[in-house]
Amino acid sequence: MTDKDKKLVSRREDFNEWYNSVVLRADLADYGPVRGTMIVKPYGWALWENIQQALDRRFKATGVQNAGFPMFIPMSFLQKEAKHVEGFAPELAVVTHGGGQELGEPIVVRPTSETIIGHTYANWVQSYRDLPILINLWNSVVRWELRTKLFLRTLEFYWQEGHTAHATQAEADERTRMMLDVYTDFAVNEAAVPVIPGEKSEMERFAGADQTLTIEAMMGDGKALQSGTSHNLGQNFARAFDIQFLDQNNVLQYAWTTSWGLSTRFIGAIIMTHGDDQGLILPPRLAPYQVVIVPIYRKDEEKTAVLPTAMRIQNELMAAGIRVKLDDRDNLTPGYKFNDWELRGVPVRLEIGPRDVEKHSVALARRDMPGREGKQFVSQEGLVATVQTLLTEIQANLLARATQFRDANTHDVRDYEEFKTAVETGFARVWWAGDNQAEMQIKQETKATIRCFPLAQPGGSGVCFYTGKPAHRIAIFGRAY
Amino acid sequence: MTDKDKKLVSRREDFNEWYNSVVLRADLADYGPVRGTMIVKPYGWALWENIQQALDRRFKATGVQNAGFPMFIPMSFLQKEAKHVEGFAPELAVVTHGGGQELGEPIVVRPTSETIIGHTYANWVQSYRDLPILINLWNSVVRWELRTKLFLRTLEFYWQEGHTAHATQAEADERTRMMLDVYTDFAVNEAAVPVIPGEKSEMERFAGADQTLTIEAMMGDGKALQSGTSHNLGQNFARAFDIQFLDQNNVLQYAWTTSWGLSTRFIGAIIMTHGDDQGLILPPRLAPYQVVIVPIYRKDEEKTAVLPTAMRIQNELMAAGIRVKLDDRDNLTPGYKFNDWELRGVPVRLEIGPRDVEKHSVALARRDMPGREGKQFVSQEGLVATVQTLLTEIQANLLARATQFRDANTHDVRDYEEFKTAVETGFARVWWAGDNQAEMQIKQETKATIRCFPLAQPGGSGVCFYTGKPAHRIAIFGRAY
Repeated sequence: MTDKDKKLVSRREDFNEWYNSVVLRADLADYGPVRGTMIVKPYGWALWENIQQALDRRFKATGVQNAGFPMFIPMSFLQKEAKHVEGFAPELAVVTHGGGQELGEPIVVRPTSETIIGHTYANWVQSYRDLPILINLWNSVVRWELRTKLFLRTLEFYWQEGHTAHATQAEADERTRMMLDVYTDFAVNEAAVPVIPGEKSEMERFAGADQTLTIEAMMGDGKALQSGTSHNLGQNFARAFDIQFLDQNNVLQYAWTTSWGLSTRFIGAIIMTHGDDQGLILPPRLAPYQVVIVPIYRKDEEKTAVLPTAMRIQNELMAAGIRVKLDDRDNLTPGYKFNDWELRGVPVRLEIGPRDVEKHSVALARRDMPGREGKQFVSQEGLVATVQTLLTEIQANLLARATQFRDANTHDVRDYEEFKTAVETGFARVWWAGDNQAEMQIKQETKATIRCFPLAQPGGSGVCFYTGKPAHRIAIFGRAY
Repeated sequence: MTDKDKKLVSRREDFNEWYNSVVLRADLADYGPVRGTMIVKPYGWALWENIQQALDRRFKATGVQNAGFPMFIPMSFLQKEAKHVEGFAPELAVVTHGGGQELGEPIVVRPTSETIIGHTYANWVQSYRDLPILINLWNSVVRWELRTKLFLRTLEFYWQEGHTAHATQAEADERTRMMLDVYTDFAVNEAAVPVIPGEKSEMERFAGADQTLTIEAMMGDGKALQSGTSHNLGQNFARAFDIQFLDQNNVLQYAWTTSWGLSTRFIGAIIMTHGDDQGLILPPRLAPYQVVIVPIYRKDEEKTAVLPTAMRIQNELMAAGIRVKLDDRDNLTPGYKFNDWELRGVPVRLEIGPRDVEKHSVALARRDMPGREGKQFVSQEGLVATVQTLLTEIQANLLARATQFRDANTHDVRDYEEFKTAVETGFARVWWAGDNQAEMQIKQETKATIRCFPLAQPGGSGVCFYTGKPAHRIAIFGRAY
C-alpha cells in the first residue's frame, strides 16, 4: 500500500495536515534539498503556466511588456531606501564568493527588484518622452523564511513583479489601481476565488510604499490569504535612485513608480478555497486537465471496443480546445483511477465502458459534486457542447460556493467579544478608527490583523468597535496565512 | 545628437564592436550593475519569448512536461560526480549567509541542474513504471565567467534545461538524438540559422557526459557558435545519485539519463548570422514585430487622411495573426523611423502616405534587401496575403543566404597549411584520426577546435590531414565564440 491509497485526513480534523497531504499526493510540489525550497512538479507547473497565461495577456492588454532583470543585486542598493532595507535585510541570501574568489562587495539574491529597477530606470529615463515605462518580470525571488510551507511561504518562490515609472502622480495612482483590478478580475473570473480588493493599513504596507492595495481571499478554514498586491511607491524609490526627467517645460522632476506582484502562493489560494476531503478541486479555466477520460473494461475484447471510442472522443474534445487526459494505464483499476483524479482535482471525469459504446453514450461526473448528484449519462452526439456547458457550470458553481462560504463567515461585529468569536472562524467587518498601536494590541490578543480597508465602502460613518471613536472606514480583520 | 543617430561601425571594420553596438542600440539588452550580468530589455525579451514558444511546443510534442526546480543546490551535491565538479567548480557563485546567519553548509546557485535532478529523481523512481521521466525547466543559471559579452557569455543567462531518465540505454540514446533533432529543426525552420548537427570530441564534451551532441552555426565573421547541446549522460549521474529502479524482472537497475539545453546565446546566433551594416535582421517567424507601419505626412490634414488608413491596415494584418507595430510617434521624422526600425531588424516596413491613401496602395520595403531592389508598391486589396507571402520569402531568403555564406566559407583541406588559412575566415572540413593531444596542439597553434563530427558522414575513409593516419570520420574545425 503506497501513500496514494491512504485516505486523506479531513479538512475539519486537521486543515494544515490536509493541505500538506494534498499538495504532495496530488503531485503539485515536493520539498527541495535546501531547507525551505520547493520543487514544483509538472502537474503544479502546468497549473502555474495557465495562471501565467491568464495574467500575462491581461498585463499586455494594458501596455505592459515583459523583460528579464538579473537575480544578483549589489548589497549597497538595498541600503538606499531606508524602509525597504529595514523590511528586507533580515531575509536576504548573500553571495560572498564567485569563481573561487571572495567578492569585494557582497551580492544579494533578489528578494524583490525595486532597487535594481530604480537604478536601471534612472539610466534609461532622461525626458518625459521616455515615460511611462511599463515592465513586468516573470522570475523567482528569495526570502530567507524560517517557517515555510509549500506554495504559501517558501525560501524561493515564483512570481511576476511589475515595475512602472510615470511622469505624474495621477498616472501612478491610476496604474496602481489598474493592476489591482487586473488581479481581481483574474482571481474571480479565472480562479473562481472571490477576493476583497482593498487597501492595506500602514502596518501591513510594503516596505517603501506610500500605499499598498491588496486582494484578500478567505480559505476553507476561515483564515485570510493575501493573494496579490499592488504598491504605489510615490517618489520614494525615484528619490533613492535618482530617477529624474525633464518635463515638457524643461524642469527636472522625480518620476512616480509602482510595483505589483502575484506569486505561486496563489496556487495555495486555489487549493484552500476549493478543495474538499477527497482532495483538490481545480477551476476549469485553470485546470491542466479539464476532463479525464477513464475507459472501463475487463476483457481484451471489451478493451478493443472501448479504447478506440475513448481516443476518438479525446480527439474531438481536444480539437475544440478542451484540455483532456486519457488515462489508459493498464495496470490500474477504474476505481483507483477515479480516486486518483479526484485527488488531483480534474473538473470532469468521463467514463466509457462497453455498454456506452453500444448505446453511443458516456457518463460524466462532476468533481465539484461527488456522488450521484453530479453524475449524468449523456449521448456522444453533441458531446463537445455538453462538456463545454458543464465546465462553465462548474466554474460558476465554484465561485458561487466560495462566495457563499466567505459571506457566511464574515460577521459585522459591534464589540470586541463578538470580534474575538468572529475571527476564530472567519472575518470580522468593523468600523475602525484605531491607530497602529491599537492594531498591534488586537493582533497580540487575537492573532487577527487588518486584512484591508475594502475599496467598496458603504459610505457614511459609524463607531469604532475597539476605540469607540467615530469612524469613517470599514475594515476587514482576519487571521492570516 | 544621441547614440541612436550615429552610424554603426561596419561588420568588416570591427565585427565585435558592431555586435555590441547592435545589441545596445537595437534595445535588445543592457548591462546589469553586477559585473557580467545582463538586463534583457522588452524587445530582446519578446524575441526570447518567441524562441521559447517555438521550442516549448516542440518539446511538448515529444511528451516533455515543464517543472520548476530550486536555484539553490547544496555544495556537497556538486562533488558527487567527479568530472562534473571538475568542470563547474571554478565557475560557482556561493551563498554563505542567509537570514543574517552564516550557513552550516554553503549553497551554490545552480550552474546547471543535473545534480539536484539526480538527487530528486532518485527519490521519485522506484519501479520501471515510474520511467521515463521527461522534464524541462525554463530558468536562469549562473556561471562566474571572467570575460563576458551580452547574450554570448554572461554571468547569469536564461535557458531551458531538459532532464530525462530512462529504463534502457537505447531509450536514452534515442532521446539524446531526438532533442538534437528538435534543436536542428528549430534553428533551421524558425531562426533561419543553418546548423551542422554533430557530435563533440571527447575534449569538448559536457562535464559528466558519455556523449555530447551539438548544433554548430557559422557567424558572419566565419567563427563558430555552439548553439544548443544534447548530452547522453549514460549511467554516470544515476550512479552518483543512486537513481535505481526495479525492472520488469524485479531486478534493481541504474537508470539512464540525458540533459539538453539551449540558451539566450541563441539570440547572439541570430544577430551574428543575419545582421548587416544597418543593424539587426530578424527572421520573420521569431521577430517581435514582423511589420512596422510608418505613416507619412507633413500637414495636419494629411495626418487626418493617413492615420485612419494606417490603423485599419494594422487591424487587418493583426487579425490575420501578423505581428504589427504602428509607429505613430509624432516627434520623429519618417526618415528617423526608417533607420530606427532597420536597426531593430523588423522584416517588413510598410509606408503609407497621402497619395497611397488616394491610390489605395502602400509601399513595402524588405529589410533583407535594402534600397530599391527590396521595395515594391502594392494594392491595399489582398494586402494580408501579399504580406504573408513576403514574410515567407524573407524567411526563406535569410536561410538560403546564410547557408550559402556558410558553405562558401567551409573548406575541405588536405594539409595543415590549407587548414590554417581556412580557419582564419571559416570552417575547415577534414578527415581526422588525431587524439586529444593533437587536438590541443592544433588549438594552441591556430585557436581552432573540433566543432563537431557531423552526423551526416560521407562514409568510406581518408587520410587524416594532421597525423597522416587512415581516418574514418570527417570533423569540422573552426574558431569558436
